[in-house]
Amino acid sequence: MAVMVQKYGGTSVGSAERIEKVADRVAKTYANGHQVAVVVSAMGHTTDELVELANAISSDPDRREMDVLLSTGEQVTIALLSMALIKRGLKAASFTGWQAGIQTEAVHGAARISEIHTESLLDWMKRGGIPVIAGFQGIADGAITTLGRGGSDTTAVAVAAAIQADLCEIYTDVEGVYTADPRFIKGARRLDRISYEEMLELANLGSQVLHPRAVETAKKHGVALVVRSTFSQNEGTVITEMKTMESERVVTGVAFEKEVARIALLGIPLETPQLSHIFSALAKEQVNVDVIVQSVVREGEVDVSFTVMEGDVDRAIEVCEGMMEETKHKGVFHEKGLAKISIVGAGMISNPGVAAKMFTALESSGAHVKMVSTSEIKVSCVIDNDFLQAGLEKVHEAFELDQ
Amino acid sequence: MAVMVQKYGGTSVGSAERIEKVADRVAKTYANGHQVAVVVSAMGHTTDELVELANAISSDPDRREMDVLLSTGEQVTIALLSMALIKRGLKAASFTGWQAGIQTEAVHGAARISEIHTESLLDWMKRGGIPVIAGFQGIADGAITTLGRGGSDTTAVAVAAAIQADLCEIYTDVEGVYTADPRFIKGARRLDRISYEEMLELANLGSQVLHPRAVETAKKHGVALVVRSTFSQNEGTVITEMKTMESERVVTGVAFEKEVARIALLGIPLETPQLSHIFSALAKEQVNVDVIVQSVVREGEVDVSFTVMEGDVDRAIEVCEGMMEETKHKGVFHEKGLAKISIVGAGMISNPGVAAKMFTALESSGAHVKMVSTSEIKVSCVIDNDFLQAGLEKVHEAFELDQ
Repeated sequence: MAVMVQKYGGTSVGSAERIEKVADRVAKTYANGHQVAVVVSAMGHTTDELVELANAISSDPDRREMDVLLSTGEQVTIALLSMALIKRGLKAASFTGWQAGIQTEAVHGAARISEIHTESLLDWMKRGGIPVIAGFQGIADGAITTLGRGGSDTTAVAVAAAIQADLCEIYTDVEGVYTADPRFIKGARRLDRISYEEMLELANLGSQVLHPRAVETAKKHGVALVVRSTFSQNEGTVITEMKTMESERVVTGVAFEKEVARIALLGIPLETPQLSHIFSALAKEQVNVDVIVQSVVREGEVDVSFTVMEGDVDRAIEVCEGMMEETKHKGVFHEKGLAKISIVGAGMISNPGVAAKMFTALESSGAHVKMVSTSEIKVSCVIDNDFLQAGLEKVHEAFELDQ
Repeated sequence: MAVMVQKYGGTSVGSAERIEKVADRVAKTYANGHQVAVVVSAMGHTTDELVELANAISSDPDRREMDVLLSTGEQVTIALLSMALIKRGLKAASFTGWQAGIQTEAVHGAARISEIHTESLLDWMKRGGIPVIAGFQGIADGAITTLGRGGSDTTAVAVAAAIQADLCEIYTDVEGVYTADPRFIKGARRLDRISYEEMLELANLGSQVLHPRAVETAKKHGVALVVRSTFSQNEGTVITEMKTMESERVVTGVAFEKEVARIALLGIPLETPQLSHIFSALAKEQVNVDVIVQSVVREGEVDVSFTVMEGDVDRAIEVCEGMMEETKHKGVFHEKGLAKISIVGAGMISNPGVAAKMFTALESSGAHVKMVSTSEIKVSCVIDNDFLQAGLEKVHEAFELDQ
């Protein structure tokens, strides 16, 4: 008998019929002798509809009230799933964020969980009850808060850590974590296991299976995670400590991002304030910068280039041109229509030549590598978007991920 | 400067545009120097849609979870109205039932308010804030409860009593309380004032302007009530103590109910257990009995007849036939297609001949009075439904309610 947390996303609870299916699965887990706590998201498009309502009232709705509004979405799901479980003869009860004791920072729209007062949850579970908990929400100083993107996954992991669950299962509409996005790469293979670190890199690099916040929380508290499909009985992917699988694989998976743009500040004199200045100004304007490359010094000047999402290009250029007087750069260059391909793998640390192998694969697809960024367990290359598909395939093949 | 509670019903907040209109009205009251607390219902058909969702899961949804589900309706409205007020530069914040400190009995679906912990509300109002409170809901032992029918009106009155408001305004889609339903009687006139007692009788007799629970709460705590329209600037009807208007009018208003049925138990021997027995059995089967008449004793036997709603006839007959052995009645008779007309007025107490005048008016419409029931401030008559319209007009005219 294990203590388990199961999290079901918006697609999994998107209709009354699907909620019934989820109830069947929870009931089966319970019948197998496990203690279960369930965490759910809002049904399908509920959140979008609520946002639309708010926008009909105000173009800049108050953030505290936005949280009051959005939190109703999960509250509807917990009530309906509890009804479905009770109908099956199970002892279930719904818990909103505040009822589950989920305390957050006093920030609206993107609060982080600070602690979970587990008394009510544990008391209910001790008496054989199944708590059905609203994801994505909490309470701070008596006010309802929401956790922002990836919130429900994070709730599930945080609850699992707080009640010391043996396992946290994230149910979603895909079968698990793949070596590459199976919608793009035919040979993409589901991974049986992956480390927190690798998953974190993949999540940050555009894989949408699991939000990086949830992975980070799981890593911090050592919560064993499984990502699996609501719509099948397959086993999914286990996410655990890295040490258990050292030297198993060099590269675990390939991820990518589209709509990437590159901006370059050319000819910055060495004596002017540089990097910190530029990137603080960009951050202040909410421009998310990804890869940053600084060229070698040439005649007392450096070039700095970085990538942003295509939608942020205009704002980024404005910021850069606005500080010309301070940085004294000679020009701003930009280029759209790029893509970023990344490989991730814990085995990379002690394995030289991985980057070289990636460059070779990309070049064989016809792509020219425009920027490179590396970490201990990842290599990212920026190329022309036109070569994305071919590049992905070549890289996937080069590291034998389909085998 | 007065302290006011304003309550807006589901039609008044039925869309984003209507919520904007409500915000304008609240803002105007605030600009006039008053302190305002606002109580709102769920938007338009939200509650019906949530009930439908629950019924898709279960034909008999768990009552605790039903409350969790339904309470989201008002939570959406408080968030949206708060946003609209904040947009107008006002200091507003939403309060769910539990945030407003509304404690209820631990009953789901039809809880009564037991007390209101006003600290948060008063603190917010003292700092110049406008609380926007979810009607219809409260909390009991940490669980969300709902108040059932008339719940939002009752919340408004209870909040007004708890914060010692000078006035509680109930905004609805009609102009106030009328001498009769203006959809049926052309000469119906809006009343400027009416007593709690009269309003209570009218509410119980089918007038849908205000729920009897709300009137009763207002009477108990001496809360001055006004019923008025969200969609006009008219003054509405004031509901206050009776003593201020004794002898003003004999009859204040006329109310009616349709789809009434009469059931009669014929020839019950005097020595068998009778009334208590019969009506306990009916109550146990959830049959609501309205008018009860017992005939005079004839040859050691009595007849008992009573009215129920047409939808309850089959169940009532089943109960009556099931107890034939005990009551030893000789037969059960029933009749559908009836209606009940009632007149209400505080002046009736000291004014003989009121009932007679009513009978005369009904007979002049061609109706035959089948049952009569009286209280100190009301007379109800059951007639054939065919004569309802004519009967209403004649009675309205006879008591000069159109003048």
